[in-house]
Amino acid sequence: MESYLKAQFILSAPLPPEANNYLSDVMERANQRFFGEGGKLGKITELKVDNNNISITIDCKGKGQPHYILFRLRKFMRTEIGKKFRVGIREIKFEEYIITLPSEVPSKEIKIPFVKKIEYKSQNACIYLDPKINLDFVEKGAIERIVGLFKTKLEMQKYGAKKEHHKIVYTSEKKDISFREDPTKIMVKLGWIRRTSYRNQWIWGPEITYLANIIKKIWLDVVYKPLEFYEMLFPKYVPFDVWKKSGHLKGLYQGSGEFYFVSPPKTRDPAFWEDLCDYYVITKEIDHNLLLSKLAPPQGGLSYAQCPPFWQFVEGKTIDIKSLPFKVYDWNGPTYRYESGGAHGLERVDELHRIETLFIGTKDQVLELGQAIRDKIKYIYETVFEIEFREVIVIPWWIEQEGRHEADLAKDIGTFDYEAYIPYKGKREDNKSWEEIQNLSIIGTKYPKAFTVKISTGEELWSGCAGGSFERAITTFIAQHGVNIDDWPEMFLKYFKDFPQSLKFC
Amino acid sequence: MESYLKAQFILSAPLPPEANNYLSDVMERANQRFFGEGGKLGKITELKVDNNNISITIDCKGKGQPHYILFRLRKFMRTEIGKKFRVGIREIKFEEYIITLPSEVPSKEIKIPFVKKIEYKSQNACIYLDPKINLDFVEKGAIERIVGLFKTKLEMQKYGAKKEHHKIVYTSEKKDISFREDPTKIMVKLGWIRRTSYRNQWIWGPEITYLANIIKKIWLDVVYKPLEFYEMLFPKYVPFDVWKKSGHLKGLYQGSGEFYFVSPPKTRDPAFWEDLCDYYVITKEIDHNLLLSKLAPPQGGLSYAQCPPFWQFVEGKTIDIKSLPFKVYDWNGPTYRYESGGAHGLERVDELHRIETLFIGTKDQVLELGQAIRDKIKYIYETVFEIEFREVIVIPWWIEQEGRHEADLAKDIGTFDYEAYIPYKGKREDNKSWEEIQNLSIIGTKYPKAFTVKISTGEELWSGCAGGSFERAITTFIAQHGVNIDDWPEMFLKYFKDFPQSLKFC
Repeated sequence: MESYLKAQFILSAPLPPEANNYLSDVMERANQRFFGEGGKLGKITELKVDNNNISITIDCKGKGQPHYILFRLRKFMRTEIGKKFRVGIREIKFEEYIITLPSEVPSKEIKIPFVKKIEYKSQNACIYLDPKINLDFVEKGAIERIVGLFKTKLEMQKYGAKKEHHKIVYTSEKKDISFREDPTKIMVKLGWIRRTSYRNQWIWGPEITYLANIIKKIWLDVVYKPLEFYEMLFPKYVPFDVWKKSGHLKGLYQGSGEFYFVSPPKTRDPAFWEDLCDYYVITKEIDHNLLLSKLAPPQGGLSYAQCPPFWQFVEGKTIDIKSLPFKVYDWNGPTYRYESGGAHGLERVDELHRIETLFIGTKDQVLELGQAIRDKIKYIYETVFEIEFREVIVIPWWIEQEGRHEADLAKDIGTFDYEAYIPYKGKREDNKSWEEIQNLSIIGTKYPKAFTVKISTGEELWSGCAGGSFERAITTFIAQHGVNIDDWPEMFLKYFKDFPQSLKFC
Repeated sequence: MESYLKAQFILSAPLPPEANNYLSDVMERANQRFFGEGGKLGKITELKVDNNNISITIDCKGKGQPHYILFRLRKFMRTEIGKKFRVGIREIKFEEYIITLPSEVPSKEIKIPFVKKIEYKSQNACIYLDPKINLDFVEKGAIERIVGLFKTKLEMQKYGAKKEHHKIVYTSEKKDISFREDPTKIMVKLGWIRRTSYRNQWIWGPEITYLANIIKKIWLDVVYKPLEFYEMLFPKYVPFDVWKKSGHLKGLYQGSGEFYFVSPPKTRDPAFWEDLCDYYVITKEIDHNLLLSKLAPPQGGLSYAQCPPFWQFVEGKTIDIKSLPFKVYDWNGPTYRYESGGAHGLERVDELHRIETLFIGTKDQVLELGQAIRDKIKYIYETVFEIEFREVIVIPWWIEQEGRHEADLAKDIGTFDYEAYIPYKGKREDNKSWEEIQNLSIIGTKYPKAFTVKISTGEELWSGCAGGSFERAITTFIAQHGVNIDDWPEMFLKYFKDFPQSLKFC
């Protein structure tokens, strides 16, 4: 990597003609000091009076960073030129900043904020930074991150086209399923659910809520009570602060285009809201521009992955190892994701109700718990739900790229997906007939590091989590078993007494 | 009330000079037809050629509405002048619209959209409408609503200063309470709850969630199982459509300044979000303007009163009377209100977890259920929680104004509030030491009418609802009983086994 920076120190007053001699001397001393003998990592190549300012050019090689040299140079000269010429350095102005690094020509143009253009020649990319970039950002590491982002985007183009690695590691016994109907249609017909006026949102009547409560009891009996998990209430509004730490705002791998954003009012003073309400009362329409003018910018969004807000409970703490592992679950309220055309019935919705299982502890504790939960999940699907399902190891491209192998993943960091067969969608041979109903991830130290959580002994804190929606569990169950209770599996029926009385419409 | 309208019909071509004679004739016929002999309700006072258009003035009295006369006049003339002069009426233009109605001089200036100014003289208000008001709005009833809004605002100034009527109808036995601490502070110290980085939001650990689950069990045993209530999942994102019908968007009585608004992305296409994510990755800051440019305007908000979204389940339906009364509850996830300076500890928060109880049926069924729930609520506080509380009848000013009396309210439409004594806040004599922990409202036909829900027999459908938060129930319980389990009431302890194991920090 090579970097070239041309910049100016803006001075508080002109320098006298003799200053150029002084600047030659400074350049020599600075090069000696910053780059040492031979200057393998770079060189200040120009330092001279330019009108009322000082003009500077710096060349760097390898890890050398010219802006860093520039900041050091300012510090180095500041006192001297103050004393010698009674002149101060008011500010730094970038004029040109070019970073050259080895690169193939990407198949799709790479765009990056604060980058004017990128040229590709002789196996290299020349990144021309926008010299107007805010120096506060530069001092906080923006240029390093621009280079990192360029590399990531280049690699994503190379690897991203590959699908996530998807390997089936377990398949349940094939069952004789005669049912072929779309569960959503049946449930709508039975009045269990009804669409609201909002996209991909449903309201749940007593019967389906009763089934959701049965699923809760099954999870309590099979997973939570035996493994001593306790319920917590995770917040469902997520401030950006959490998504910054959890990485969700990076968005490259985890679509921020799926978030619902939340804006609080600028003030709750009724007088401030009066004109908007009056306009509505008179016209029966909302004045959207007026509404927007009354809202603060979004400060967060609706719960998306469910577990990130948990980390606020332990953030910045050191945990007594005696209280580990810590095992909790949350099923308090919906999470949200903005689904596109893929939304379908109750299976893929914007407002979804999930069970989130979360555990933290030492590496051994987390791996052991992960294995125990894997077994319990399989037990639920195999023995209680009696459904056809399969267990799949999923490796996102970015883990694969880091050289992790399947074998490692199975006992280490990684994700298991549980997919159920949905008969009305088609044949078992077609992957589209299988739908993810649950996952289980061993996440390692990612969250503890991001939220600065430690163990009293100094060991690494690990975490794992598992999530699945009531929507998917219920639609899968019905897709395979139908709604005739006589056809339902014995173990499931142990939890079932009778459907609650609901409304009848004329 | 008197109204004066000066307007123009914009014509497709000039009228010939002889048209004025024709217009005199039309005016006479129209007056005869629209106002009858004597013209007690008003008169068209001018109808003449004015350049290329027709100039009209209309005076109305009492319920007569000149814009309505104007629309009828257009219809009346259209065919005739088309046939006679080959000229069409292209559009209507208001020039002046003044409504005069009896009014005191308000203490505070009244502002209304589409109103240029309001003058007060001789016990009257003269409302000068903005002639640029969109005629679509006018045709849909905007002017009638402007007059209604003026009257409401005038009356609010008169009555609004009065506090809500607040009459204590029951006070539980006085108890010997020695505990005087702030429950939030204790729970924070014990690690049961922790503040998040967002305003007035808390994360709930296993111990307090265990207490919340005890409260759920108590409600099930005391209220829901005996009275046969069933759980439903009410949506927690509320589209504007619901708030339009529930009246929450009117905002005059129910602060829309307390809503959290939700914006979906314009699209979830990752390419559309790339620059925002990149900017964040590089700067670690969110570009709020860029973010706003990527969001659709809010299309709804976070659940506020909890029960309005229920009505989407029955909207537009006719219910078989045999399935009434219908009794449900929802405790699926938090509701939100933007609290101002009044926010305090866990007692007044922005994200709160509530139990919502809702019942619909004939008037008799709803009144009977209301009475039964009143008794059950008192039983919970008196016998299970053993707390000091009081029952209060609350009458909002606007119901009072309609001439409803306390006596009616107690057996008819109205709200009961349940207030608990909070010892650390001060003496019982001070109203500030009492905090609302639950309410129960008999709402009558408001929601069924707004959402067009009917009974098969043609009887009126009524509704009632009750709400209370886990936050208030738990803080009250601890405020009176402390956290020493030995001091807790016997009936409550029947539900309590042991606190779950939680984390210990160093």
